[in-house]
Amino acid sequence: MIYLDNAATTKPDTGGLKAAEKYILENYFNPSALYADGYNVHRALKDAANNVLSVICNSAEYELIFTSGGTEADNTAVFGGGKRGNIVTTMGEHSAVFAAVNELKQRGLEVRFADLNADGSVNAESLLSLIDEKTSLVSVIHINNETGAVNDVVKLSAAVKLKNKFTLFHSDGIQAFGKIPFKITKDIDMYSVSAHKIGGLKGCGALIKKKNIKIKPLIYGGGQQNGMRSGTENVFAIKNFEYCAIKRYAELTENFKKVSAVKSVFVKRLDNKLFKFISSENVSPYILCVGAYGVRGETILHEANDNGLLIGTGSACSSNDKKRYSRIILACGIGETIADGILRLSFSPENTVEEAERAAEILNRIVANRKKVME
Amino acid sequence: MIYLDNAATTKPDTGGLKAAEKYILENYFNPSALYADGYNVHRALKDAANNVLSVICNSAEYELIFTSGGTEADNTAVFGGGKRGNIVTTMGEHSAVFAAVNELKQRGLEVRFADLNADGSVNAESLLSLIDEKTSLVSVIHINNETGAVNDVVKLSAAVKLKNKFTLFHSDGIQAFGKIPFKITKDIDMYSVSAHKIGGLKGCGALIKKKNIKIKPLIYGGGQQNGMRSGTENVFAIKNFEYCAIKRYAELTENFKKVSAVKSVFVKRLDNKLFKFISSENVSPYILCVGAYGVRGETILHEANDNGLLIGTGSACSSNDKKRYSRIILACGIGETIADGILRLSFSPENTVEEAERAAEILNRIVANRKKVME
Repeated sequence: MIYLDNAATTKPDTGGLKAAEKYILENYFNPSALYADGYNVHRALKDAANNVLSVICNSAEYELIFTSGGTEADNTAVFGGGKRGNIVTTMGEHSAVFAAVNELKQRGLEVRFADLNADGSVNAESLLSLIDEKTSLVSVIHINNETGAVNDVVKLSAAVKLKNKFTLFHSDGIQAFGKIPFKITKDIDMYSVSAHKIGGLKGCGALIKKKNIKIKPLIYGGGQQNGMRSGTENVFAIKNFEYCAIKRYAELTENFKKVSAVKSVFVKRLDNKLFKFISSENVSPYILCVGAYGVRGETILHEANDNGLLIGTGSACSSNDKKRYSRIILACGIGETIADGILRLSFSPENTVEEAERAAEILNRIVANRKKVME
Repeated sequence: MIYLDNAATTKPDTGGLKAAEKYILENYFNPSALYADGYNVHRALKDAANNVLSVICNSAEYELIFTSGGTEADNTAVFGGGKRGNIVTTMGEHSAVFAAVNELKQRGLEVRFADLNADGSVNAESLLSLIDEKTSLVSVIHINNETGAVNDVVKLSAAVKLKNKFTLFHSDGIQAFGKIPFKITKDIDMYSVSAHKIGGLKGCGALIKKKNIKIKPLIYGGGQQNGMRSGTENVFAIKNFEYCAIKRYAELTENFKKVSAVKSVFVKRLDNKLFKFISSENVSPYILCVGAYGVRGETILHEANDNGLLIGTGSACSSNDKKRYSRIILACGIGETIADGILRLSFSPENTVEEAERAAEILNRIVANRKKVME
């Protein structure tokens, strides 16, 4: 089997499982318990928060709220930060932001959507034109989860603050964290990350936020995590996440090169008479978006599956909304014919050049044969 | 070590870990992925939902929303169900309900709190007197997490519906699920459960809800779980939870007897000249609440810890709010002298009669010695 759906989820890292396993059967205590064993787990969570922060920002200025995953992190930022006036975001957001801002719209807030460029990145001019003195929150995805386009959130956040220094800037960094070289800069107030996209476990993520900004929690209760996220912490998954974050940052450059090489072979081998490449130059090596000319993506996906190749059609999450075309792909200005044939290939450092070659051959053959049948 | 803090969290069941482990390294696929391996995980989640439902209700009439734990389940019920008019709840709720309804109060809704009886159960008369034609939600904890008092939610929900048939009835069943004989009856619209209180993993719980009632989600995004709870599902913890729920219900009667016997020995051995028993007759065998006369609970907890005995002082969650006295214990009408010495002992089927004897001796000795020093 060739697994090229790593943007949907990754195979858990066995090192991370090993590192965290003692928190299942040995240190299983409630981190809020007052006896020493409970306190030790609490301290282990503090260490995890500091270690995850340290890989991506100045941990003196930021704090970390562990969540049940990227979606909850995004929702915490949007519902916590988007409290009044208007909210500015992009047409290229993951559903976790897109559906959350639409809910805020339902509740009476004004939501403004910036246009996308053809590669899925946000049009900076469009974004900045939407910001005014009433903008409470701007949310811009760091790496588009369908096209892999990279938004320069360092520049964008600085430009946003120039227009309105009180506006909070959030970025969904779920496809960027542990994958591209990046540090959170001073104008980025909140940043969402997820564990299971970097070899961690499903059910774990975090919202990184500037200490000096105040937002309301999404989930209320026993006051865990300084009251910002109540509920007994998912200790095993958090300690596992800590391991994966440290590892992925230690190996980031090496992995970046490796994945770039794998992707480059795939791109060379894929027949550009059969497939249109959506992704641009300024793109994560971990994601490739292509559109088959005249063959449905879902048809290709299932036939690839029969050939031992696992790929996606756009976001795995968006498969639940049962719409035929990806909202993001249409927002890139791509017509319905290509939008119907969209595939997302997403790589991991575990993928090999040989897998890339075989995958391209499988896809070329499927589409060529389908087209022959149609002729 | 003697572990008598099982209401805070339980040691995970190794059978459950074994049953679910293939969802870590083999079936790690995203349940929303469209290829067969993804769909199979999706189906495994459906099976888990049906199996968990089947142990506690008529699964034709109810559906289950997997959450990140009991707190999120309670929040989903409170924020989803408490939308207008007034909300009626009790002074004996876990923080996951108590803090959530207080947040609704901040947002402008009226929240009414029913009084407690001396054992921590809700005063039914007080509760019913608060319900009127504008009550959108009633939330009553099934088993009080500090005193173990059992509320008869079958009777209470029926009485609530007689007063207002449009009122939604929710119960936090987190300390009841898998522990006392109980089936959800027709007037109970929503019921919260948690995995890590019955040998499952932290980070997993569920809100069981009647299919024919509509509530808004708490978390928005990719539309997983019929749009009721977006975010990639925590597959490993869910399949583990399924195993634990089935097992605990299969062994419920046997465990109930075993735990009752352990508790009864403990109660007999504990010196009633040193400790006041808060728990009543109508109480879960899994929880015992006592108050030491004239010695602080936290002092006893730490000295017990030194003697290899792990216990709680009220709810583990409430340890975060840094208040000296438990809000629930005070609401039982207990004075500050006893409230200062409150201990919660909580049992599991793994505890033995010998452990109960030793634990009682340790606590008797600690309090007797402290009192001697004070004399």
